[in-house]
Amino acid sequence: MKLATFTHGGTTRIGKVVDDKIIDLTKADPTLPTDMISFLAAGDAAMAAAQKASEADAVALSDVTLEAPIMKPGKVMAIGLNYGDHVKEAGLDIPENQIWFTKSPTGCVGEGADVLKPAVSDMVDWEAELVMVIGKRARNVPRDRAHEIVAGYCCGNDISVRDWQFHSPQFTIGKSFDTHGPIGPWLTTSDEVGDPHDLDIKCLVNGEVMQSSNTQHLIFDCFDQIAELTQVMTLEPGDIIFTGTPGGVGIAMKPPQFMKVGDTVTIEIEKLGSITNTLVSEDTKTIIG
Amino acid sequence: MKLATFTHGGTTRIGKVVDDKIIDLTKADPTLPTDMISFLAAGDAAMAAAQKASEADAVALSDVTLEAPIMKPGKVMAIGLNYGDHVKEAGLDIPENQIWFTKSPTGCVGEGADVLKPAVSDMVDWEAELVMVIGKRARNVPRDRAHEIVAGYCCGNDISVRDWQFHSPQFTIGKSFDTHGPIGPWLTTSDEVGDPHDLDIKCLVNGEVMQSSNTQHLIFDCFDQIAELTQVMTLEPGDIIFTGTPGGVGIAMKPPQFMKVGDTVTIEIEKLGSITNTLVSEDTKTIIG
Repeated sequence: MKLATFTHGGTTRIGKVVDDKIIDLTKADPTLPTDMISFLAAGDAAMAAAQKASEADAVALSDVTLEAPIMKPGKVMAIGLNYGDHVKEAGLDIPENQIWFTKSPTGCVGEGADVLKPAVSDMVDWEAELVMVIGKRARNVPRDRAHEIVAGYCCGNDISVRDWQFHSPQFTIGKSFDTHGPIGPWLTTSDEVGDPHDLDIKCLVNGEVMQSSNTQHLIFDCFDQIAELTQVMTLEPGDIIFTGTPGGVGIAMKPPQFMKVGDTVTIEIEKLGSITNTLVSEDTKTIIG
Repeated sequence: MKLATFTHGGTTRIGKVVDDKIIDLTKADPTLPTDMISFLAAGDAAMAAAQKASEADAVALSDVTLEAPIMKPGKVMAIGLNYGDHVKEAGLDIPENQIWFTKSPTGCVGEGADVLKPAVSDMVDWEAELVMVIGKRARNVPRDRAHEIVAGYCCGNDISVRDWQFHSPQFTIGKSFDTHGPIGPWLTTSDEVGDPHDLDIKCLVNGEVMQSSNTQHLIFDCFDQIAELTQVMTLEPGDIIFTGTPGGVGIAMKPPQFMKVGDTVTIEIEKLGSITNTLVSEDTKTIIG
């Protein structure tokens, strides 16, 4: 099943994507929550109701605006240096331990959304990543049960402002600019994805392939990541995890290459669809309240 | 005004603390939101209504359980190496740029709550910090207007699991254990605090003073921090910011000293009150759903 958050006729709600249509889950079953985090928290019963929703309540996918499937996650965890070719292009050694940072929950945007070029940097880079969406509240989950807590997967772009990422020893600020966490186009449920560790993953900038790999090359795989994180913290429905990027990022090129205003960046993952976003200039006006 | 989140008679809601009583804001004005983030988002009108709330709706402070004033913030930002004596004890140079990491929003607990000693570490350390609570949605805020977006301040303990903090180059995981973000005892509003850069701050472990400083020694002060963060991301009502810790942490002692099960840790800040938490052994059972 493909579950999307979408805006149509002035309201934002969730739906099930079938071919080129989206079935409005709120119309199909008015008892269902209208936002994805509450829907996931409602558990198996809500998932079963979504499965039953019929095409009678469908609108054309081309008539709606897709939002980030999770518009404001409780947590956005992200792992660094998690594909061998990316570690090599960074000139580093394979990490002994998982390297965790975060992205800002206010940075998530959906398919087609503008990505802002910050006024304070010209070093905006792409990172294609498989993103896990957590479906169940979880703590101390052993690796062999980790699959139980994943509601599904989507494409993610861990957009990185390289000068800010490296002007202190901590990555977080350079990973947390508004709009720098595109995810989507929708959440594809785990049952439909099957093995998450055998998916082709690509990043294209203006149609040119910059990254091309397969999730079989993850150093710490999805389930290792869940086992590690849940030794530390409670994961909750709607939390998302960026699982790492393969080689081919802009900063590692000779000479380094960064996105320019007007460039489009596409992340494509087998079975999950694709997201394309365009870099636009940021408006730097002060907003208070 | 002192605004608290509290549990009494089986429900959790917000109140105004006056001397040794807490005025139930939900009873005083049933139109007010019952959680602090929604209350802050409701802006000046809600704040004015809270100011009017009368003691007729009060219960004894000793009869309620204080929760974290913000139970699950949208963002928990934290700055590292932000007092000169702490930088020195860490053997480092004064940072040129602000060093940002995050703590887990699911890690916030209140005054009196247990703090868990992780099964996976014996290196649990304390860090007394002034915590800012954001009151208004804000972006690109210049330093001289930063005070406008701060709803108030509280005490915070940036509990740090030192081996996990340093087993990768990124601090986040060692700062993000469940229960490792005690804040409270309540939010004291900005008007009552006055200058946030002239407050005595202390950490006591089992009653012994381990840290003792004043917020005048912040390297990057509260308003520098807001100016920097809002160049990057939108801050929202209920987001919280740990502003850094002074010298005197356990890992810098010779020999290093860490908390043991049964130890109490108290953070005291002038005008803001104090929070005391006790270290207890973690239950490592698997929780799914």
